Amino acid sequence: MDDFSPIPDYDTHGWFLKSVVEILFKNVVFATNRDKVVLWKHPKELLEVFDFSLQQTGVTQDKLLTLIKNTIKFSVKTGHPYFINQLFSGLDPYGLVGQWITDALNASIYTYEVAPVFTLMETCVIREMCSMIGPEWKDGMFCPGGSNGNGIALNLARFQLNKNVKKTGMSQFPRLVLFTSEEAHYSILKFSSFIGIGEDNVILVQTDEVGRMNPTHLEECIQEQIDCGASPFVVVATSGTTVRGAFDPLYQISAICKKYKLWFHVDAAWGGGLIFSQRHRTKLNGIETANSIIINPHKLLAAPQQCSILFVKDENILYECHSKGAEYLFQKDKYYDQSYDPGDKYLQCGRKCDVFKFWLMWKAKGSSGFAKHVDAIMDVAEYFERQVLIRPEFQLVSKRQYINVCFWYLPRYLQKKKDVMDYSIQLHKVAAQIKAVMVKHGSIMLGYQPLKEFPNFFRFVSQNSALGVKDVDFILDHIAEIGNAIYD
Amino acid sequence: MDDFSPIPDYDTHGWFLKSVVEILFKNVVFATNRDKVVLWKHPKELLEVFDFSLQQTGVTQDKLLTLIKNTIKFSVKTGHPYFINQLFSGLDPYGLVGQWITDALNASIYTYEVAPVFTLMETCVIREMCSMIGPEWKDGMFCPGGSNGNGIALNLARFQLNKNVKKTGMSQFPRLVLFTSEEAHYSILKFSSFIGIGEDNVILVQTDEVGRMNPTHLEECIQEQIDCGASPFVVVATSGTTVRGAFDPLYQISAICKKYKLWFHVDAAWGGGLIFSQRHRTKLNGIETANSIIINPHKLLAAPQQCSILFVKDENILYECHSKGAEYLFQKDKYYDQSYDPGDKYLQCGRKCDVFKFWLMWKAKGSSGFAKHVDAIMDVAEYFERQVLIRPEFQLVSKRQYINVCFWYLPRYLQKKKDVMDYSIQLHKVAAQIKAVMVKHGSIMLGYQPLKEFPNFFRFVSQNSALGVKDVDFILDHIAEIGNAIYD
Repeated sequence: MDDFSPIPDYDTHGWFLKSVVEILFKNVVFATNRDKVVLWKHPKELLEVFDFSLQQTGVTQDKLLTLIKNTIKFSVKTGHPYFINQLFSGLDPYGLVGQWITDALNASIYTYEVAPVFTLMETCVIREMCSMIGPEWKDGMFCPGGSNGNGIALNLARFQLNKNVKKTGMSQFPRLVLFTSEEAHYSILKFSSFIGIGEDNVILVQTDEVGRMNPTHLEECIQEQIDCGASPFVVVATSGTTVRGAFDPLYQISAICKKYKLWFHVDAAWGGGLIFSQRHRTKLNGIETANSIIINPHKLLAAPQQCSILFVKDENILYECHSKGAEYLFQKDKYYDQSYDPGDKYLQCGRKCDVFKFWLMWKAKGSSGFAKHVDAIMDVAEYFERQVLIRPEFQLVSKRQYINVCFWYLPRYLQKKKDVMDYSIQLHKVAAQIKAVMVKHGSIMLGYQPLKEFPNFFRFVSQNSALGVKDVDFILDHIAEIGNAIYD
Repeated sequence: MDDFSPIPDYDTHGWFLKSVVEILFKNVVFATNRDKVVLWKHPKELLEVFDFSLQQTGVTQDKLLTLIKNTIKFSVKTGHPYFINQLFSGLDPYGLVGQWITDALNASIYTYEVAPVFTLMETCVIREMCSMIGPEWKDGMFCPGGSNGNGIALNLARFQLNKNVKKTGMSQFPRLVLFTSEEAHYSILKFSSFIGIGEDNVILVQTDEVGRMNPTHLEECIQEQIDCGASPFVVVATSGTTVRGAFDPLYQISAICKKYKLWFHVDAAWGGGLIFSQRHRTKLNGIETANSIIINPHKLLAAPQQCSILFVKDENILYECHSKGAEYLFQKDKYYDQSYDPGDKYLQCGRKCDVFKFWLMWKAKGSSGFAKHVDAIMDVAEYFERQVLIRPEFQLVSKRQYINVCFWYLPRYLQKKKDVMDYSIQLHKVAAQIKAVMVKHGSIMLGYQPLKEFPNFFRFVSQNSALGVKDVDFILDHIAEIGNAIYD
């Protein structure tokens, strides 16, 4: 057969597909953990050694296998225990095959007709998680990432304020303002611009010494905006801030929202997975008082990218706010009850199935498996923090509240010497220099950033519950070793 | 090892993962084509026969394999040649393994650091496609579906009109209005609401007898809105409408946009893949005059879900309109040139890699492979239309322009009898009745819908270039057979 059709044929593709799976098993899935996290190349170098070019004519399957091996070779091993650069890591075997099955079935989740198993599965997972949040919680939707989920929540809040906005738009509206902490995720700003609110109308509330929103300041800000004639409509609290992992005081914020009749959204993209842990879910206390919550199972729970769920208390609002009733998809004369079609409550039309991988992980491990996973990670983070406190060459930025441990490596000449000229400027350079060496070694990928008045510091985060205390020792030893080599 | 950690271990997971791959090869990827498209169950039945429930404790790998087999059993076989229900179908073997590799590497595409191969690959694919559109085209971004891409384009258009909107929002703005045809995709309405424009401010321009936007009416609408004091800001043309596959007259619309200084967006999600075909790309003539274009390789080109690309002419606008400069991701003191980090031009933060599967398909087949694929599909659609015209029991809704063939099956008592009482009401019921039988047989999944004054009709669309004239004959024979059984 001519090899341009989207239909697999055993004679033409059997060997190739099997070879790819073998390569994946050997070089990615079951690769030895102590391989490098990354084989670093500068972009210009990589452009030279990797054949990105596209041509008129296709290449052979042998050549494709070489390209695939090179893709793996030069890609970051995000499943490696020392990939602690972002808010995701690990490679869950059940999640992975869940994705593979999803891909092979290549469904789009708008109607029961086209995705019978997956539409019911979404409902099941959403209901199960709703019941974990609280008895009043009724509905939810899968989103293409937490940023989008936050944006959708802002739009729901605006719709709740004045349902005409769906039809009339905002041009006749008063100036709407929203409130979130100065350590909230940048998606609140991005999506405020996108939905027509404007980033100037995002009021950043002060945070305390560990990064939690200050509710007194929140109320001052609300009052100030009302006095200026603006219309507050939503407060976005964070359960697990991106950098410091702070948990905003939900009950206090909730009371303020109630007083001023504001929608209460909780961005628990990062921290929401704690809901599975009896030991640690108290950090989420008060989350049940919100109107909407975003939780990303692809973060703490280590589901593969991407799996984000927006939960809402009001069971009608997603349909009311989003529906358009396109008749080519949501026919009113179907051979089954149309209420099983979730598509019209979404903004996306075609939508990849993100539920199956997560459901399969849940089925494989049970809720108790997620709990053990979360507890193990929290224990490692606690050990990490203790080590930072003990070792003289490290300093904690602020007290740990979650699995984020924020710390500086202090070169000897900066240790206990805050009076060094330009102390902050000097310290600011350290993390970037050490990181560059680590990446070039390919040994560890660890994130760093400045925050408020703090110069650049490292942020340790791991969602990989296979990481143990020995790994923590290695990571800290390794940073110290590189630091010593550079600064001593 | 305790089986809750996101790290694959050969002893614990080797057998399971291999078993899943075997099941996928046997039951999905290389399944015989003549299996049923769907094993239909009513939702309530499926809830009884499939164990969706989630528990405290995990289940065994054996039990998981059973659940996986059931997931496959009760899912629609979207790769089946007789899945012609939506604007996607087929199962491309290169696209599929591209997804599997993407999943195993589990990257998130915001920085070069975390996704070196995939960030450069995105740039390469975007540049290559830009050069196919026209020399002035400079940039693009991958979107979570065409609906989102259309929404982002509307926001770019608003930003171009008045860059303050990013900061101030829309509350001080005049009433902004946009124009699209009455047969455009419903995402224009959904996203107009979402971004704060409001669906009342979407002016639906009339279409002609085959579904193309009427440019004279467009100009009248623009003039009318200006006379009312509204501010037109964008026209959305469609290259390949969802139901009839119509191509709006781009040059004429472009001239009007120029005259009134409006942003010109082309929704070529469905039709854009024609760009690869020398024989058929003339349907896209004038697309190069637009300001932005959305093309979904996951539609016509049969890339797996999901792969949508928004192209823009202005090389700075995506950064200008979307950037926020979050320092924890886009550090200014990086060990490489930060311009290689694409993340800040996106609204999404974490973002799944959608480029690799498409790049791998392109590499495997070459541009000429996509061309052959497109040409083969167009030939089949032409044959389908001819058969509809020849056979007395079928009637064309309107002349075919693309691979959408819209047609009625006419029961004998309605053939050539437009004077039958309630002709339209009678005819309206036919497609739904036949479809219900086909789905219950599991033989064919074929979409239907009403449109404008037309009662329910079938829409044939296939992106599967392995579908041949024999399949067309089978599909039409099968519909006629069911129709005969019901109505004669």
